[in-house]
Amino acid sequence: MDQTTPRLLRALAGETLDRPPVWFMRQAGRSLPEYRELRTRAKDFISFCHDPEMAAEATLQPMRRFPMDAAIVFADILLIPGALGQEVWFEAGEGPRLGPLPEIAAMRDAVEGSTAKLSAIGETLKLVRAELEPERALIGFAGGPWTVATYMIEGRGSMREEARSFAYAQPEKLDALLDVLVDSTARYLVMQARSGAQALKIFESWADNLAEDVFERIVIRPHRAIVEKVRAAGVTAPFIGFPRGAGALVDNYAAAVPVEGVALDTQASAALGRRLQAGGKTVQGALDNLLLREGGKALDARVETLLEQWSGGPYIFNLGHGVMPDTPVEHIARVVSRVTGQPVKAFGLQGAGVA
Amino acid sequence: MDQTTPRLLRALAGETLDRPPVWFMRQAGRSLPEYRELRTRAKDFISFCHDPEMAAEATLQPMRRFPMDAAIVFADILLIPGALGQEVWFEAGEGPRLGPLPEIAAMRDAVEGSTAKLSAIGETLKLVRAELEPERALIGFAGGPWTVATYMIEGRGSMREEARSFAYAQPEKLDALLDVLVDSTARYLVMQARSGAQALKIFESWADNLAEDVFERIVIRPHRAIVEKVRAAGVTAPFIGFPRGAGALVDNYAAAVPVEGVALDTQASAALGRRLQAGGKTVQGALDNLLLREGGKALDARVETLLEQWSGGPYIFNLGHGVMPDTPVEHIARVVSRVTGQPVKAFGLQGAGVA
Repeated sequence: MDQTTPRLLRALAGETLDRPPVWFMRQAGRSLPEYRELRTRAKDFISFCHDPEMAAEATLQPMRRFPMDAAIVFADILLIPGALGQEVWFEAGEGPRLGPLPEIAAMRDAVEGSTAKLSAIGETLKLVRAELEPERALIGFAGGPWTVATYMIEGRGSMREEARSFAYAQPEKLDALLDVLVDSTARYLVMQARSGAQALKIFESWADNLAEDVFERIVIRPHRAIVEKVRAAGVTAPFIGFPRGAGALVDNYAAAVPVEGVALDTQASAALGRRLQAGGKTVQGALDNLLLREGGKALDARVETLLEQWSGGPYIFNLGHGVMPDTPVEHIARVVSRVTGQPVKAFGLQGAGVA
Repeated sequence: MDQTTPRLLRALAGETLDRPPVWFMRQAGRSLPEYRELRTRAKDFISFCHDPEMAAEATLQPMRRFPMDAAIVFADILLIPGALGQEVWFEAGEGPRLGPLPEIAAMRDAVEGSTAKLSAIGETLKLVRAELEPERALIGFAGGPWTVATYMIEGRGSMREEARSFAYAQPEKLDALLDVLVDSTARYLVMQARSGAQALKIFESWADNLAEDVFERIVIRPHRAIVEKVRAAGVTAPFIGFPRGAGALVDNYAAAVPVEGVALDTQASAALGRRLQAGGKTVQGALDNLLLREGGKALDARVETLLEQWSGGPYIFNLGHGVMPDTPVEHIARVVSRVTGQPVKAFGLQGAGVA
């Protein structure tokens, strides 16, 4: 692949690079003081996500501070339920809340119009792409259908026992809901790719604790369907699948879902990553976000271990979970500097312009 | 092995049997009406566990109802902190609460006397063994040191983020705490074996979400140390290790910890179980406890799948997690009847004597 192609895309094309590209889940957001300042200007979190100027600024903030190889559009996995007609809001300090689950038939009817309701995210992508250097990639994303469904069923983020029971008690209804989500998510990702997203990530945050047959039915099958639908629309952007917590079932996932990259969570073993690489996948992960927050020699040592264990194949350096809000910016800078070999200048607010 | 040897022990000796032994985690306890009646007689849960007559009765209740191949002593993983001098109590409907963590040095001094403080559990085992038919095995158990440490550090069951951070922020202190727990747990298990426990299980309930190097340090190393200490004391009872949630790291665990059996949680893949069997381990698990509660054709089908995928090697049929309190007794009976080929008579309270 051309040397001017962004490093992230070269890794996702299967190249083993001289050093892995790096970006961090939740690199934009609450860990940055400039984000917290920006956030005060929006009346609520959902409005913030639907405001292209502000969302683009949030997307770019970490790119100004750190030599990250990729930006990820600032948005939320719960924008899709909103576009399908379910009320979504955020309680300060408590997380998302959702209104009653609409009828499946009503949501199915809403799928066709759902992408238009998410057009602001396309605008955000265009604004970011226009400002971002060409060697830095732009990632679009959506939530995995099962994860989004758990919020839609339970009305909030919780233990998901209710949603897991729903998978057994009302399998036809869950499958119908997942089908609606597959369809709307595929359309949303196609729109994101056409608006400038160069790679697409599916965040299946609640892929843990599922039996093998259920995992096949509610995670693997929907992911495969999304990738196939997006490909059928002519989009060639590579996919990163993130079945968080899938542990013993990650091999099943990698074998069955035609994603280019598999994001591994904190638990990933060296052997698992190497197995995926040998099977033709690009591996992403898996630094512990608690260790990033803690810092110190243990962090430095773990970064070296990760680089050593996976740099022999296609690899994207990242966390196993999102940056925690109280993570010192210096810790992020130190790790990114180590991986990229570039000094990181801006530790303060200097140079971090706010729209 | 002799045909009169309990089926569970034959499986743990590596035998592939005509049908696997079966028992269920939390088979005794809140899902049984006779347990709920019995429980009202004790002033609190900890007192209940320390009352050999009542604990033996609770242990035996499911053995009267179902043709389980093994009983597991009724006790709690938080009895050890109590024996080491940390206050432990249960808030109704909320779970365990613990007082401030004692000084490590004080707990180290308390190790030698800790087993004597747990002598009631030895009495329970003797009472159960005297009443249990010889072909049914009796299992003793303890919590994994890391899991017990999370409760001791956090003062309750929670997200364990605080304990996971502690592993990075105060590694020496955590290691010292784990050493104290390894020592007291090994002594406790030796006492259980000498009191009639024929197999020993280590419940590491919070083995999920740990980085590979941390898992090695705080799960694998302590488990190995416990098994070695118990063996050094001359105890030959086989071990079942249960690193719940270890997912991608179960292979590491099985390779490094000299347990005879590995209990797999709900997520276990068919391939993982077969890999462990091929590596010389007996596999236990992994029926979804939510599916057991739900029942119906999906439950029947899943039971068949589990029997088919693992019965070609040494296998113990069990759940991936404990029986939920609101599980219909009929569902348990149906599954146990299928696995054992024995009809289950007592669905009601009839025949379920209460001490």
